[in-house]
Amino acid sequence: MHSLQFTAESSSNGMIERDFTVGDVPGVLWSPASGAERAPLVLMGHGGGAHKKHPAMTGRAHSLVTGCGFHVAVIDAPGHGDRPRTAYDEQEIAELRRAQAAGEPEGPIVVRYNARLAELAVPEYRATLDALQELPEIGAEGPVGYLGIAMGTAIGVPLVAVEPRITAAVLGLMWPDALFEKARRITVPIEFDLQWDDERIPREAGLALFDAFASKEKTLHANAGEHVAFPRFEVDSAVRFFARHLGRAVTSPA
Amino acid sequence: MHSLQFTAESSSNGMIERDFTVGDVPGVLWSPASGAERAPLVLMGHGGGAHKKHPAMTGRAHSLVTGCGFHVAVIDAPGHGDRPRTAYDEQEIAELRRAQAAGEPEGPIVVRYNARLAELAVPEYRATLDALQELPEIGAEGPVGYLGIAMGTAIGVPLVAVEPRITAAVLGLMWPDALFEKARRITVPIEFDLQWDDERIPREAGLALFDAFASKEKTLHANAGEHVAFPRFEVDSAVRFFARHLGRAVTSPA
Repeated sequence: MHSLQFTAESSSNGMIERDFTVGDVPGVLWSPASGAERAPLVLMGHGGGAHKKHPAMTGRAHSLVTGCGFHVAVIDAPGHGDRPRTAYDEQEIAELRRAQAAGEPEGPIVVRYNARLAELAVPEYRATLDALQELPEIGAEGPVGYLGIAMGTAIGVPLVAVEPRITAAVLGLMWPDALFEKARRITVPIEFDLQWDDERIPREAGLALFDAFASKEKTLHANAGEHVAFPRFEVDSAVRFFARHLGRAVTSPA
Repeated sequence: MHSLQFTAESSSNGMIERDFTVGDVPGVLWSPASGAERAPLVLMGHGGGAHKKHPAMTGRAHSLVTGCGFHVAVIDAPGHGDRPRTAYDEQEIAELRRAQAAGEPEGPIVVRYNARLAELAVPEYRATLDALQELPEIGAEGPVGYLGIAMGTAIGVPLVAVEPRITAAVLGLMWPDALFEKARRITVPIEFDLQWDDERIPREAGLALFDAFASKEKTLHANAGEHVAFPRFEVDSAVRFFARHLGRAVTSPA
């Protein structure tokens, strides 16, 4: 088991930001600037082609940290951010760009590439969680959430299916093809986002993935608009979802 | 045009509650206890067999008034609350009870009875809005919201379709049969609730009504569970929806 090594620390905008590594996986942990009070952890997964400090990640972290006092951590997915690309990564990315340029469906390529990345990333997330829970401000007893959209869902569904420490998850915007079987094993509360007019992921496919979760408590949020129009206010909703399920009050109305 | 007559006033739980009549239609207006500051109005519609001060109404009003400082008004639907039942009301209610007791589908009866009530209620809501806008704390310039679930949607869809003063609405949990055509005329932001496992309203029917709204901004919230399991946290979501669209801050995190 690898322990967590902090490699950099800074503070801004109400958050302490600490870069870390667990083995050769780089990540970042955001915590309330007010100090090291013990609080629940929310793990996040970034989108395809993005990285741990993409603005979508820092924005969501800020809402979770300053809105509820959570700790929030994200790691670079294999082949993303500060991690090297393998020949396989390069090959799939080239294939994806070729399909996009040719106007061909990107779904089959994204599904198979992200499924492969998830096989690698799930044990990395679990090792990261092991290491983060050794920190006194997180601890091993607290509930853990997971928030990941698009590729963050391609990794998140298999992760939540096998990781009992994760007790609530916000997911969405992903083809269901590689995820049905694992979604059927998930019983924790789920908030699931889709775009009603998604030009990439068919509406029926998104609805079918939501339907597959075995969770007794699950909520679908479907917003009008195309794939990239995913609205900012769903982040506020995710904060409130985690506040309900991880046992925190929303301290800062947004 | 009938003017508004206040008939009773009380105060509790952070709200001033004023009973009123507009002509022979009784209603209630809840406002912040802190006073008569001008603020947007949210009209509400109650459910079938309920009335203007049903706990669902007082609970939603409390969240809207204390969470955002809105004024909130609801009137008794025809044949409901303090209003007399006609022979037609008695006949349809008896038919509904008979169908329920026999285990027959209640949808066709609810759809036709609520459609008739909506024909009567829409002009009553518009006259009530005329009268409420004469109050200095509401005024004629401010945006107006509408919140109504189930029968409140059977009335709300035709109301929002013809009433340009209503600029945002939360609707849901209703058969679409009598509402499609009017929903297609609605362009204001909509939050639409349905129960994913509704044993009364088929899932596809609920999804089809959401799809029918012409609104560029619309959000579907589908929650796991049967018809009556409609979760309380959707009221908090409605408060935040109206805060976004009627231009108020959420002052009290819930």
